[in-house]
Amino acid sequence: MGPGDNATAADLKNARELGQLIAHQGWVLLTGGRNVGVMDAASAGAKAANGLTIGILPDDDAISTAVDIAIITDMGNARNNINVLSSNVVIACGMGAGTASEIALALKGNKKVILLNQDAVESQRFFKSLSPNNVYAVDSPDAAIAIAREIIGDGST
Amino acid sequence: MGPGDNATAADLKNARELGQLIAHQGWVLLTGGRNVGVMDAASAGAKAANGLTIGILPDDDAISTAVDIAIITDMGNARNNINVLSSNVVIACGMGAGTASEIALALKGNKKVILLNQDAVESQRFFKSLSPNNVYAVDSPDAAIAIAREIIGDGST
Amino acid sequence: MGPGDNATAADLKNARELGQLIAHQGWVLLTGGRNVGVMDAASAGAKAANGLTIGILPDDDAISTAVDIAIITDMGNARNNINVLSSNVVIACGMGAGTASEIALALKGNKKVILLNQDAVESQRFFKSLSPNNVYAVDSPDAAIAIAREIIGDGST
Amino acid sequence: MGPGDNATAADLKNARELGQLIAHQGWVLLTGGRNVGVMDAASAGAKAANGLTIGILPDDDAISTAVDIAIITDMGNARNNINVLSSNVVIACGMGAGTASEIALALKGNKKVILLNQDAVESQRFFKSLSPNNVYAVDSPDAAIAIAREIIGDGST
Repeated sequence: MGPGDNATAADLKNARELGQLIAHQGWVLLTGGRNVGVMDAASAGAKAANGLTIGILPDDDAISTAVDIAIITDMGNARNNINVLSSNVVIACGMGAGTASEIALALKGNKKVILLNQDAVESQRFFKSLSPNNVYAVDSPDAAIAIAREIIGDGST
Repeated sequence: MGPGDNATAADLKNARELGQLIAHQGWVLLTGGRNVGVMDAASAGAKAANGLTIGILPDDDAISTAVDIAIITDMGNARNNINVLSSNVVIACGMGAGTASEIALALKGNKKVILLNQDAVESQRFFKSLSPNNVYAVDSPDAAIAIAREIIGDGST
Repeated sequence: MGPGDNATAADLKNARELGQLIAHQGWVLLTGGRNVGVMDAASAGAKAANGLTIGILPDDDAISTAVDIAIITDMGNARNNINVLSSNVVIACGMGAGTASEIALALKGNKKVILLNQDAVESQRFFKSLSPNNVYAVDSPDAAIAIAREIIGDGST
Repeated sequence: MGPGDNATAADLKNARELGQLIAHQGWVLLTGGRNVGVMDAASAGAKAANGLTIGILPDDDAISTAVDIAIITDMGNARNNINVLSSNVVIACGMGAGTASEIALALKGNKKVILLNQDAVESQRFFKSLSPNNVYAVDSPDAAIAIAREIIGDGST
């Protein structure tokens, strides 16, 4: 999960690398599916590594070409709840209002969330204050995957 | 908006007072509609002042007796997006993962949000960092209503 | 419930009359809320009789001026499920694919449905075959209201 | 698409065969994902033929063991709109209120629908009256696949 229209260059680089690493684990990548920002970069990274990619989309416009399976919801941001409930682990790459809603909905749904957004002290402090045991902050895609492996290995899949 | 199951005594007192003040303005109160926490207290306060109350509910169990019009969504937390999009102004009374998702969805939908939760520095800093122009922090129901009046008077209704 | 864009003149006349009769009963009218077709005509009829009207809308464009309370879902036709679950009785005035989805969702949700669409033998036969005890066919707004009164009086409210 | 709890033996046999034939085409099967009725039988048929199966589920209870990718919506029957919008072609195997809602939502969303339910004259007449050019009635899984191939080959994918 991460910004669509306001992703930074660092977010996009991290997202692409996350997509590749997720595919290397043999995991399925699920994103918001549009052809912009973190969702597009992560999907492209996963496809470059021969992964399987799912997009949970608002409509059939502007689907990322790197999405294999497009789920069309005809819902706007309410689909964010579907994104997180369908995921074993949520990795937030970057920050914005939409991403914040996904993190909060994930925590409400008892999902574990890994925050990959350097120098974002406010968001880390806030989400840890909401749910100390379910929020992890990391500073690289590799570190995010290492924690995700632990979580999934704990039987959370 | 505010916690259902983990509201503090201060949240409940503020919510009840907010409900009364909203009714006194002649406004319609919209909440999550269940018979617990901030939504129940705010609805009860509004009814005590002869206001009109709407609840956007997950199902027809556990509806607050202070809700006049129950909208049954058969959706869980995804209904939070409906709550905020249907509101002219969002007032968050207390904090938790569900409330945080509503604030984030409101900001994503370009709604203005008033935070009424004393001593909650992390949440105020975080949401102001997301959207400096659309987030207000207050320390009393009266102050929340004063800001809401300004917002609505600005033509945001 | 009824067609938005393809309502017949008879549908519109019936819808307006239904809206008036619903208001006369002291009931709240709930429609899809847009400024077209059966939903607009029914809402206008209810307002002419000083009723309270609710619209469950896809977005904040094209809201009927006769809707008092606009619930904005950011959902397209999936909102049809909210419409029927939030109603004590569903009256279908006219027919089309959207209306058919509302009738089917109402029956799936164990709601009673009154069909007001003259000469529509296929729809009456089909929906009665799906749920013989929950489908009523009538040929006038007055007859629809009479059956709705019986249903609500049976404790279905 | 088809009944969960009230599927007939013929529906289940057809569903299993449809699942196999869909997998043989190299297509992805999308169903409601629960471990009952037509959705379970179709998914099991597709897996027996090494197909890929997606389930659009209300929650994480009672997922069919033959579903590869579970999308958890936290929505009840409103998820039916997601099912049909995410499909290139909708095949209805059997009939009931839920299935009828999916057919109607599919037609509302301009999708083509193939009805596979022998002796169900009322449903065929009704849905053809709603949308003569988008509804096909067949009497075998093979015939359903033949029409689906034509539709998809027409550029509808």
